[in-house]
Amino acid sequence: MSMQLDFNIQFLPDGGVVSAKGFLAGSARGEIKTHGDDVALIVSENPAIAAAVFTRNLVKAAPVLVCAEHAQSTQARAIIINAGNANCCTGEQGIRDARKMCELAATRLNCDDREVLVCSTGIIGHALSMNKIESALSQLEYSDDAAQNEKVARAVMTTDTRPKFCAASTSIDGKTVTVGGFIKGVGMIGPDMGALIPSTPHATLLCVLTTDAQFEKQALQSELENIVERTFNSVTVDGDTSTNDTAILLANGASGVLINSENSAQFRALLENVCTHLAREVARDGEGATKIITIKVLRARDESDAKKVAMTIANSPLVKTALFGNDPNWGRIAAAAGRSGANFDAQNLQIKLGDVEVFKNGEPTDFDLTQAEAVLKNEEVEIEVSLGAGGNVWTAWTCDFSYDYVKINAEYHT
Amino acid sequence: MSMQLDFNIQFLPDGGVVSAKGFLAGSARGEIKTHGDDVALIVSENPAIAAAVFTRNLVKAAPVLVCAEHAQSTQARAIIINAGNANCCTGEQGIRDARKMCELAATRLNCDDREVLVCSTGIIGHALSMNKIESALSQLEYSDDAAQNEKVARAVMTTDTRPKFCAASTSIDGKTVTVGGFIKGVGMIGPDMGALIPSTPHATLLCVLTTDAQFEKQALQSELENIVERTFNSVTVDGDTSTNDTAILLANGASGVLINSENSAQFRALLENVCTHLAREVARDGEGATKIITIKVLRARDESDAKKVAMTIANSPLVKTALFGNDPNWGRIAAAAGRSGANFDAQNLQIKLGDVEVFKNGEPTDFDLTQAEAVLKNEEVEIEVSLGAGGNVWTAWTCDFSYDYVKINAEYHT
Repeated sequence: MSMQLDFNIQFLPDGGVVSAKGFLAGSARGEIKTHGDDVALIVSENPAIAAAVFTRNLVKAAPVLVCAEHAQSTQARAIIINAGNANCCTGEQGIRDARKMCELAATRLNCDDREVLVCSTGIIGHALSMNKIESALSQLEYSDDAAQNEKVARAVMTTDTRPKFCAASTSIDGKTVTVGGFIKGVGMIGPDMGALIPSTPHATLLCVLTTDAQFEKQALQSELENIVERTFNSVTVDGDTSTNDTAILLANGASGVLINSENSAQFRALLENVCTHLAREVARDGEGATKIITIKVLRARDESDAKKVAMTIANSPLVKTALFGNDPNWGRIAAAAGRSGANFDAQNLQIKLGDVEVFKNGEPTDFDLTQAEAVLKNEEVEIEVSLGAGGNVWTAWTCDFSYDYVKINAEYHT
Repeated sequence: MSMQLDFNIQFLPDGGVVSAKGFLAGSARGEIKTHGDDVALIVSENPAIAAAVFTRNLVKAAPVLVCAEHAQSTQARAIIINAGNANCCTGEQGIRDARKMCELAATRLNCDDREVLVCSTGIIGHALSMNKIESALSQLEYSDDAAQNEKVARAVMTTDTRPKFCAASTSIDGKTVTVGGFIKGVGMIGPDMGALIPSTPHATLLCVLTTDAQFEKQALQSELENIVERTFNSVTVDGDTSTNDTAILLANGASGVLINSENSAQFRALLENVCTHLAREVARDGEGATKIITIKVLRARDESDAKKVAMTIANSPLVKTALFGNDPNWGRIAAAAGRSGANFDAQNLQIKLGDVEVFKNGEPTDFDLTQAEAVLKNEEVEIEVSLGAGGNVWTAWTCDFSYDYVKINAEYHT
């Protein structure tokens, strides 16, 4: 990550959603999940600006519709999240319940309902009990204690095997600016999130980010959309876009640093580092995953082509099962690139597994099989695909496809 | 299949590629596969007209390039096919070898090289031995004996567990017209075949069809393209489009029936019945499949939307693992429909599993779980998805996603 060096970006030990100045968080148990806390609250001491992106799936959960509406308010104070029930495919009652969650949090915080954003994740098609939300909220204590970083990240987990959170800081205009957050999601991961469109998602990727930078609302939204495209929308486990995917970024200005055209590149690098870290954590914790795969596509005609190739490889069941089996199957990678819809000449295609060049000029190289297999046996594998068609690049992250993926998803019952 | 009734289409017992008048076929062993015949020859007694479609994958095998070139000849006499080696990613030598295969068959048949079409399927990135092809051809005997229908269908198998072939007849203008053929393919099945484009495929779906109807070349090509889109391009096992996918239809006119605008609907129904049967056989024999799934999308705004929804559901790992687990997971089906790119209102979405309506008006129905699970335990499952957005329909076929799919593809080694 060269940007880290350029801008002196530092990851903070145990950093997360309360690392940026002026943010607090807490969680409690509402007995929605089978065990552990399942309701989380993230609060900005002072009014913040919110940016948010939501699933582009036509089937959207109630909290997505309500959250998209509230994200348009000029200011935001808090985010309420529950895990265990996605409040999706729940009709008009679902909408009323999502609004009720905002109202309950607003009453607690003494702010306007529209200053509260809401997310849900879990099973779909079942009414979400407001009594449980209310009970959890009444017990919930929030603070800026660093222990909350892990606690809230854990509260939003569903089938995740571990909490996923981080924070990083950099010095901008002589002052420290921090971005931190958490993410949840391990299956139904093929995010395709875009700008606020009051429409319909079944939740799986949820991400909350906080920063103490100061922003104009529209500029914050642009930054988030841009970075989400390169990070969360570029991670996949199964290519199945959920009905509840949501990423929210709150900026409260507590650092005293206004982000403008002079310093925005540095902030962007900070945000991208945090989001890349969280996106990779999703791939690493993917259902049944035994390894994380980074797919770098180089020399594409344009970014759209580079992304098509990266995502088609990242979603190919044949590539993912080969990676599980530690098989350097360049043919499946080449075939996936070739069907991606990107424009390139197959004669110029090059494929590397780690440092081992396995395919060049339309043919396999005389590579050492043992060496290539050794690359694939690592817990982190990098696949580099060069199209020889231009100067554009894209990176995607995925995981392998194992027996456990089938087990987890075939044994799950509606 | 109402068309069968309308046009009195009859499937022929043990019918196949030699069922239509004037076609002969045979196979022999060239020791390319580990066991069994692996070289097949299909011959038309008299010059025929050829139509062909090839993979749209940018990475195309040598035989696809040569076959696409030869398919443009005004007449065709034969098709030579080998299994065990796809002659893909084999550079200039691969092209010379594909041409050589045509030359060897043409010498045997005393016709022009350009009247011979060629297909290969099997491993990629390895030179295909012309000595083996020559040796097989020298032993190969071809005839119109009905036993050849299964014999050649078996010779082209790679990881297929059973030969897949059929034929059907109907009476057009008082004379019998027959279409027959065979297909191979069980993995890397996500065909996307289109008109002759001299470009590059790693083989998996190969289909040879013969008919004794008489056709103008351009009309034959149009019929094939149209039917392939509705049949082979609508079957998927893993969504991975191969580098060698090829479907060829030879028409030799031996029935004495010229297909024209008056009788083309009947011929189209005949061809569609045969291709649908073969497409379903591919899904049924899909790698690791325990059941065949038919996905019918109804009331779509247009056919393109209907196909998007059908194929997105058919390729969803979450839907396919749920089907393996006999879980009536309407949420995964609704989510796949919603991310397909088709335009519809989620409030109008309806989903049926067999006769059990599980989802309506944006919410799950109060369906009987035991009854829905019973539907899924059959070897054939029909999923009906109605979008409420228009009057267009599409049908796709797929199979479930089992432990054996992972096993077959993770344990395979390059």
